[in-house]
Amino acid sequence: MGKKIKSAITPTREQDYPGWYQEVVKASDMSENSPVRGCMVIKPWGYAIWENIMNQMDELFKKTGVKNAYFPLFIPLSYLEKEAEHVEGFAKECAVVTHHRLEPDETEGGLKPAGKLAEPLIVRPTSETIIGESMAKWTSSYRDLPILINQWANVVRWEMRTRMFLRTSEFLWQEGHTAHASREEAMERTLQMLDLYAKFVEEQLAMPVIRGRKTPSERFPGADDTTCIEAMMQDKRALQAGTSHFLGQNFAKGSGIKFQNEAGQEEFAWTTSWGTSTRMIGGMIMVHSDDDGLVVPPRVAPAHVVILPIVKKGGDNRPVLENAQRLKDVLEEKVYHGKPVRVEIDSRDIGGARGWDWVKKGIPVRIELGPRDIEQNSVFMARRDRPANAKESMNREDFISQITDILDHIQETLFNRAMAYQKENTFEMDDKNKFRKLFQKAKGYNNGAFVRAHWCGSDDCEALIKKELSVTIRCIPFDSPTEEGQCIYCDKASSRRVLYAKAY
Amino acid sequence: MGKKIKSAITPTREQDYPGWYQEVVKASDMSENSPVRGCMVIKPWGYAIWENIMNQMDELFKKTGVKNAYFPLFIPLSYLEKEAEHVEGFAKECAVVTHHRLEPDETEGGLKPAGKLAEPLIVRPTSETIIGESMAKWTSSYRDLPILINQWANVVRWEMRTRMFLRTSEFLWQEGHTAHASREEAMERTLQMLDLYAKFVEEQLAMPVIRGRKTPSERFPGADDTTCIEAMMQDKRALQAGTSHFLGQNFAKGSGIKFQNEAGQEEFAWTTSWGTSTRMIGGMIMVHSDDDGLVVPPRVAPAHVVILPIVKKGGDNRPVLENAQRLKDVLEEKVYHGKPVRVEIDSRDIGGARGWDWVKKGIPVRIELGPRDIEQNSVFMARRDRPANAKESMNREDFISQITDILDHIQETLFNRAMAYQKENTFEMDDKNKFRKLFQKAKGYNNGAFVRAHWCGSDDCEALIKKELSVTIRCIPFDSPTEEGQCIYCDKASSRRVLYAKAY
Repeated sequence: MGKKIKSAITPTREQDYPGWYQEVVKASDMSENSPVRGCMVIKPWGYAIWENIMNQMDELFKKTGVKNAYFPLFIPLSYLEKEAEHVEGFAKECAVVTHHRLEPDETEGGLKPAGKLAEPLIVRPTSETIIGESMAKWTSSYRDLPILINQWANVVRWEMRTRMFLRTSEFLWQEGHTAHASREEAMERTLQMLDLYAKFVEEQLAMPVIRGRKTPSERFPGADDTTCIEAMMQDKRALQAGTSHFLGQNFAKGSGIKFQNEAGQEEFAWTTSWGTSTRMIGGMIMVHSDDDGLVVPPRVAPAHVVILPIVKKGGDNRPVLENAQRLKDVLEEKVYHGKPVRVEIDSRDIGGARGWDWVKKGIPVRIELGPRDIEQNSVFMARRDRPANAKESMNREDFISQITDILDHIQETLFNRAMAYQKENTFEMDDKNKFRKLFQKAKGYNNGAFVRAHWCGSDDCEALIKKELSVTIRCIPFDSPTEEGQCIYCDKASSRRVLYAKAY
Repeated sequence: MGKKIKSAITPTREQDYPGWYQEVVKASDMSENSPVRGCMVIKPWGYAIWENIMNQMDELFKKTGVKNAYFPLFIPLSYLEKEAEHVEGFAKECAVVTHHRLEPDETEGGLKPAGKLAEPLIVRPTSETIIGESMAKWTSSYRDLPILINQWANVVRWEMRTRMFLRTSEFLWQEGHTAHASREEAMERTLQMLDLYAKFVEEQLAMPVIRGRKTPSERFPGADDTTCIEAMMQDKRALQAGTSHFLGQNFAKGSGIKFQNEAGQEEFAWTTSWGTSTRMIGGMIMVHSDDDGLVVPPRVAPAHVVILPIVKKGGDNRPVLENAQRLKDVLEEKVYHGKPVRVEIDSRDIGGARGWDWVKKGIPVRIELGPRDIEQNSVFMARRDRPANAKESMNREDFISQITDILDHIQETLFNRAMAYQKENTFEMDDKNKFRKLFQKAKGYNNGAFVRAHWCGSDDCEALIKKELSVTIRCIPFDSPTEEGQCIYCDKASSRRVLYAKAY
C-alpha cells in the first residue's frame, strides 16, 4: 500500500465537502466574513477574479450593442407594494431603510436612528422595477427601440444561512434589461444572451454547462420563458450559473413601456432580462479546486505566474531578486488573449510555506528560481493542473516562449477534466427505482448525478420529486431530442427527457 | 451690430449659471432624477464617461501596486459610535437600515417593515471603519506591509439639496487606503496619489488643477495632512477634484493596525487614504461646456465620432447607410491612446434636431455623410471645440488618417482654453479692500476669482473670511514660494500666499 499523501486542505472533499469548500476559500485568501452578518469582505485575490469576469463579460455585452447605466441603490416601498398585490403570503427578506440620520441617544448613550422617512426605502434586491419605470419614460416611438441596458452593481437579499460567494446577503452581479419592438427580436435577444453566458462560462471559467429552459414552476415570476445554464459541481450537484428571461409583454404592461409603431399605433414593448453574479465564482471554486486548495483557470486568474526566488537569510539575495525581476519583465511583455501575462514575485523568507501558499491560491504556474537555475539558464516549473510535487526543469527561453501555450493548455485541461467528470456522472435513466435509490443515498461528496429522464409535464410530479428526493428539474435541455418515453415518477407518456439533479 | 446668435441651451451661462448646468446635463442625456429623492439615474451617455474614468484611473492605480477589494455595503452602528465619542453635537446624515423584512400591513394595507434588527446598520458613507478593521486583521508583521487597497463602490450621505453629479445622496467613488511601516513611505504614498490624481484630471479630463495642502481647519478629520487638487469652474468658483490624506498613526491607533517590525518590536502602522468621485464629472461639465451644451474631452468621451448619414424618407438609403458603416469600420481600426476609436452612427430620420442632439451630447467630432460626399470621396466634419456651424469638407482618406490627431488636438485645445481661463481669473492681491469688493459683488456667472493672497495662519481670520465673504482657503499651493507679506484680513505677518476662492 502506498503512503497516504497528506493534502494541503483539511477536511478533504470526501471527508466533508462543505467544510472543504469553506477551507478552500479561506486558504486561498479570496474572501473572509465581515462584522456584518451575511456580508463578506472580498479580498484582492477574490476581487481580481471578479474584475476579470466583469471586464471580459462586459466586452462581450458591448459587442452586442448593450450599454451600461446606473440606477439608484434604493427602491421606494410603494414599488414593491404593486408587486406584492399579486403574491399571496408575500414576505420579502430585504434591507429596509427607515431613517436618514444618527443622533446621540441621551437616555441610553451611544447613537440612535433619527429623521424618520415618510416612506421607507428598500435596498435594491434587483433594479427591475426602477429600470422598468425609466424605460417607460425613455420609450415613445419605435425609433427609441431597442433599449439595451446593463448594470453592474451590488444588491441585497437578506439571508439567514450564508456561504461565501454562493449565498450572501449582499452580492455583486450584473442585470441586463432590454426592450424591443417585436416578440421575435426579444426572443432572439433572450437566447443570444444565454448563449453569451454559456460561451463565457465554458471558455473563461472552464465550466461546461447544459443549456436549457426552466419548467413553468421554476420560471422567473412574470417570465414567459426562463432559459438557464447549469453546471455540475464536484459533489454532482447542479449550480445555475446564469439565467436569461423572455418576459413577453408582461413586464412592459406592469411598467407602462409603450411605443408608437411605424404605423402610428401604440403597442407594449417586448422585454428580456438576464443576470449573473459572484455566485459564478462559487461555481468555479467547486468545479476545479482539489484537496490542495483553489484552482483558478488562467483566463480569469488574478495572476498567471508566481516567481519564487530562492533567498537566504543574511545572504546577498540581490542577484537572484534582480534576475527574478528580469524574468517578470520579459514574461509581462507576452500577450495572453489580448492582455499582458500577469506575474507576481514572492520573495518572503518564510520557508516552504511560501510555495504552498501559492498552491492554495490556485495560481496556474509557479516558478522556483535559485542561483543554480540562473547558472544553468533554467527555471523550475510547476503547474496547478498537475500534482503539487510534479515540478519540471525547463530551459528559461523555452519557458518564456511557451508561457501562453502553457496557460492555454492548463485552461483546456481544466475544461476537459470538468467535462469528463460531468459526462461520467450523467446518466439516462428509465427505471424509477434506480432513480429513487440514486438520490435517496445521495449525500456529501456523492450527492447524486445529472439524470436525463422523462417527465410527463405535470407540476404535481415535479413537486413530488422535489419533496421526496430534494431533486429538481434543472432544465429541459435544448439538446434533448424528441423521444417517446414514460415519466420517471408517474409512468405517463412523455416526449422528451429533462435534466434532474440536486442543486445549490 | 451682429445678429444675436441663438444658443442650443436656455438659459445661457450668463443668464443663469445653475439653470444652465441643469439644462446641459438634461440635454446631453447623461442622467436624470430618479423617483428616490436625492438619487440620480446615470444614463448610458453619463455612465460611459464614468467607465472611462474608472478604467483609466484604475490602470494607473494598479501600476503603483494598488489592488482592488470589496467591503460590505453596511456598517454596524457601533462602528460609528466610536467615532461619535470624539465629536461634539454629532449628527450624521446617513441611511439607517432598521428592519430586514417587508410584510403585508393588515391594518393600513400595503407593506410594512418587519424583522427589526438588534443593531441598526448604516449604509456606508465611506468604508473607512470597516477597512480599518480588516487591515488590523491582515497586519501582524512588517512582511505584511505595505497594504495598498482601493475600492470602487457606491456610498450614501443623506443630502437635502442635491445637484446631479455635484451632490447626490448616493454617489459613485473610489476610496484608497494604504498602511505602511514608516512615516516616510506613507507620506510618499500620499503625495504619489495626489500627483496621480492631478495628472489624471489634467490629461484625461483636460482640467488644469492647483495642487496644495488644506489648512488645519479644512483637513479631513483625523488626518495629519490633507492634500488636494482644486479646479476653476467657468463661474470662477473652485471645485475640489480629489484629496489625498496622510493620516499619521491616528487611524492605525483607532483601528488597531499594529505590526512587528524587523527588530521584533510592535508598532502602529502609518496610513493614508485618498478619493475621487462622480463629482469629477460635474467639474468636467462646468469647465468645458458652453451655451450649446456639453463638451466632453476625447480621452473620456463615450464615443469620439458620430456619423450622420443623410437619409431621405421613402428613398433608397442603403448605399449611404452601407457607406457609413464602412467608414465606421475603418475608423474603429484606428487606435487612440491604446483603445479603438469609438464611432456611433445615427440614422434617425428626424431632420435637423439630429445634429443638434450630438452637439448637446458634446461628442468631439460629427460627420455628415450624403450621396454627394460619397461621390466626391469627402466627409463634412464639425468639431465640438469650434462653433457648431463651423463645418469643413475634408478628403475622406485624410480624415481617416488624421482622426487621432484631430482628437488629440481637441483635447489639447480644451485644456489650453481652461488653463487660459484659470490664469485670466487668478490674481495676486494685497489690498484688503479690493479683496473684499471682489468677493462681495461675486455672484452667478461672475462668482469671484482665484486669489493668491497672504494669510497669517490663524483659524480666526480664516473663519471670519468664510463668514463674511463665503470665501475659503482652498489650499496652500505647493507652488507658492516663501514670501514676506501681510494677512489679507488682519495685516499680521505672513510668509506665504494661499489660494482663496468661493467653492462648490
